[in-house]
Amino acid sequence: MPELRKDPLHERWVIVSLERGRRPSELSSPRRVDPCPFCPGNEHLTPPEIAADREPGSLPNEPGWHVRVFPNKFPALCIEGDLRWRKRDLFDQMEGVGAHEVIVETPHHDLRTSEMPEEQLQRVIRMYRHRVADLYRDPRLQYVLVFKNCGPQAGASLQHPHSQVIATPVVPHEVQEELDSSRRYYQFTGRCLYCDLIEREVERGERLVYRDEHFVAVTAFAARFPFETWIFPRAHRACFAQISEEEVAGLAHVLRTVWERLDWIADRPPYNYLIHTAPRERDCMLERSFHWHLELIPRITRTAGFEWGTGFFINPISPEEAAGLLRGDGGRASR
Amino acid sequence: MPELRKDPLHERWVIVSLERGRRPSELSSPRRVDPCPFCPGNEHLTPPEIAADREPGSLPNEPGWHVRVFPNKFPALCIEGDLRWRKRDLFDQMEGVGAHEVIVETPHHDLRTSEMPEEQLQRVIRMYRHRVADLYRDPRLQYVLVFKNCGPQAGASLQHPHSQVIATPVVPHEVQEELDSSRRYYQFTGRCLYCDLIEREVERGERLVYRDEHFVAVTAFAARFPFETWIFPRAHRACFAQISEEEVAGLAHVLRTVWERLDWIADRPPYNYLIHTAPRERDCMLERSFHWHLELIPRITRTAGFEWGTGFFINPISPEEAAGLLRGDGGRASR
Repeated sequence: MPELRKDPLHERWVIVSLERGRRPSELSSPRRVDPCPFCPGNEHLTPPEIAADREPGSLPNEPGWHVRVFPNKFPALCIEGDLRWRKRDLFDQMEGVGAHEVIVETPHHDLRTSEMPEEQLQRVIRMYRHRVADLYRDPRLQYVLVFKNCGPQAGASLQHPHSQVIATPVVPHEVQEELDSSRRYYQFTGRCLYCDLIEREVERGERLVYRDEHFVAVTAFAARFPFETWIFPRAHRACFAQISEEEVAGLAHVLRTVWERLDWIADRPPYNYLIHTAPRERDCMLERSFHWHLELIPRITRTAGFEWGTGFFINPISPEEAAGLLRGDGGRASR
Repeated sequence: MPELRKDPLHERWVIVSLERGRRPSELSSPRRVDPCPFCPGNEHLTPPEIAADREPGSLPNEPGWHVRVFPNKFPALCIEGDLRWRKRDLFDQMEGVGAHEVIVETPHHDLRTSEMPEEQLQRVIRMYRHRVADLYRDPRLQYVLVFKNCGPQAGASLQHPHSQVIATPVVPHEVQEELDSSRRYYQFTGRCLYCDLIEREVERGERLVYRDEHFVAVTAFAARFPFETWIFPRAHRACFAQISEEEVAGLAHVLRTVWERLDWIADRPPYNYLIHTAPRERDCMLERSFHWHLELIPRITRTAGFEWGTGFFINPISPEEAAGLLRGDGGRASR
């Protein structure tokens, strides 16, 4: 059983997950898997599916799917069990209860997000919505994170395009910080911090990468990584599961547009993306103050001792220059 | 001029440092430098030295040194200038004032910490002490971090053994969290959290890697990374610059001991280490509640979307198992 532990010196949770463990010398290399368990025809190599977007008439755990979801074979957290939160001396720990799912995004083994038809991206986004809504029905799960690792340097152990979902029994620190700062801002101003940020970025234009009726993409003002880009829905909603059908199409379009540019500029970099949504338990003020969004992190630079020791990051490209390159106008502010 | 920016959604500072910038396609590969600017005889290839531990009679910026310090040629922060902290709309920023130095640890191009004679490690530690004390004389610098990156995967751009020092005009978030948690603990109990942690770890023994009269090394209870190890001085002192001559010898010995074991178990992994010391401005309670320490982070696993999205970490080896391997007794608690 995995275990959740809280650091006595920091607001930091760690999952100690021995089921994933291998010998120390093996930890740094990706698992070798042949044949690919995510390809059609190899469904028996994965745990039984939880959900799928399928051709009419096709059967579960057989080919005929467009998008397929199953539990991670090497889960960081396990769905069975009770939390049993306990503290002994200075040490907080609980059982590693939660969910860890894999969403295979396409039957094709070798497609980047930038190469996926928008229709297929829409199917993937609808599956994200379904999984977030479904996992929030379990009262033990306080937070659901949808994320993607692409490329071994970004932590992907398999090449076949896939996203992951991890649901945790506590609200993660990184998310809690966003909830707290947007709540404080709301209490002070009566407005959503994200809505104000979007308005300011569209007005100033210097970090704007893309905008249309439904979405805005900007490089982050204090980007940790070169080309770090945040995608915001223009309509204020706290939870990603509330995304409308129109927005599903809009998100597919902005994702595909930003990725095409990024792949062109940075030569198909490894990347992570993740969706920050509201936690399970929400009061009225959280609904008004928090605004779901997607963060895209190209993994071009490496983190080192300074970053781990301070929480500071060093970014060698200014967010304004990065936005100019992503817009393709060499840095002139688009308004 | 580099720039410090604060994220409007998180307590997170970023250094945007264009002097370090190269074309996007070049950012991921280490700089190629030939000949090595850190080798004896090539002193003219570095900025003029700030300090050195030298043979009697040898001249600055010439061979004859054991340890040599100079400003980083590609500094993340610059020593000249005023902060000019300003806020416009939602965006906090200031000039990137600070210090960024390189400490070349040995004239030998190709030595790991585990292979360095303890006498040489002592010279390095004395230089750390000198640089921390010296930089804290500048009232603009609020925090000094000494750290080391070893191996390209750990962010080192040059192979020749070297550490770095970065002094920042604000106290980093990661350090502030430690200051806050130890202050709260002190207010509640009247004791130092670190002293209590050391006592508990020595008593329990399951995460103990090494101990002697002056130092204790333990794997962290909530280790983010496999084999993450913390080294604590047993004598309570807030600032690393207060390290005694006896402790210099003790720290050299514990460093060398832990590294030898780590290199053996994990096959000479890339790693970072860093020293957390007290900030420049201290009141009486900070002196009593904070306890300097060294954190060692082997870079065996990779961080991915889940870690960036949550601040959680997934560790595939339990800290108790890691401590057993580092002790060489296969996991039996040593007391």
